[in-house]
Amino acid sequence: MPRPEKHVFVCSQSRPGGHPRGSCGQRGCREVVDEFTKQWQQRQCFTQVAVTPTGCLGPCNMGPSVLVYPEGIMYGNVTVADVSEIFEEHLLGGRPVERLIVPASVW
Amino acid sequence: MPRPEKHVFVCSQSRPGGHPRGSCGQRGCREVVDEFTKQWQQRQCFTQVAVTPTGCLGPCNMGPSVLVYPEGIMYGNVTVADVSEIFEEHLLGGRPVERLIVPASVW
Repeated sequence: MPRPEKHVFVCSQSRPGGHPRGSCGQRGCREVVDEFTKQWQQRQCFTQVAVTPTGCLGPCNMGPSVLVYPEGIMYGNVTVADVSEIFEEHLLGGRPVERLIVPASVW
Repeated sequence: MPRPEKHVFVCSQSRPGGHPRGSCGQRGCREVVDEFTKQWQQRQCFTQVAVTPTGCLGPCNMGPSVLVYPEGIMYGNVTVADVSEIFEEHLLGGRPVERLIVPASVW
């Protein structure tokens, strides 16, 4: 793929039930990963945006976690319903979605 | 984890044998992921560097692929023997390892 303007990394980490750290998997990240991929294909923004699933990004108790580079902005508690806004405002519009950014103490 | 100065993403994508795209898995990425994680722990550079395994980063035929943000520099054909140099020169020293950077036509 060409080098994108925005690269969005979506945690796809799962852990067994009862694990003390929990995981984005337990908090619905599979559907969030799928929604990012689906919208990326529908919007055909292949040269502007890249979408990559990842292992653990760190703040498991605030997942699903989504990280956007090159800015290094971390979103927490992302739901399927938030994905359109992240695309339109941030990935394509260049304006981070302030309400979803994790606290500075976390990242 | 705190927001790192350098975030290194290491492809851990595998595909079945004979798949037309191949994969970083077929080209030894598992050992490269493990070496990045091992050196990250040994060097205790937890506030400076983050290491995250990922799904496909794109240039499968030049894997194992390693991507460093915020610069957005993609390395290809990375081996276990290259990991020390990437840490010392780029992740901790701030000087990208030119010989491993993929061609501009790829990324």
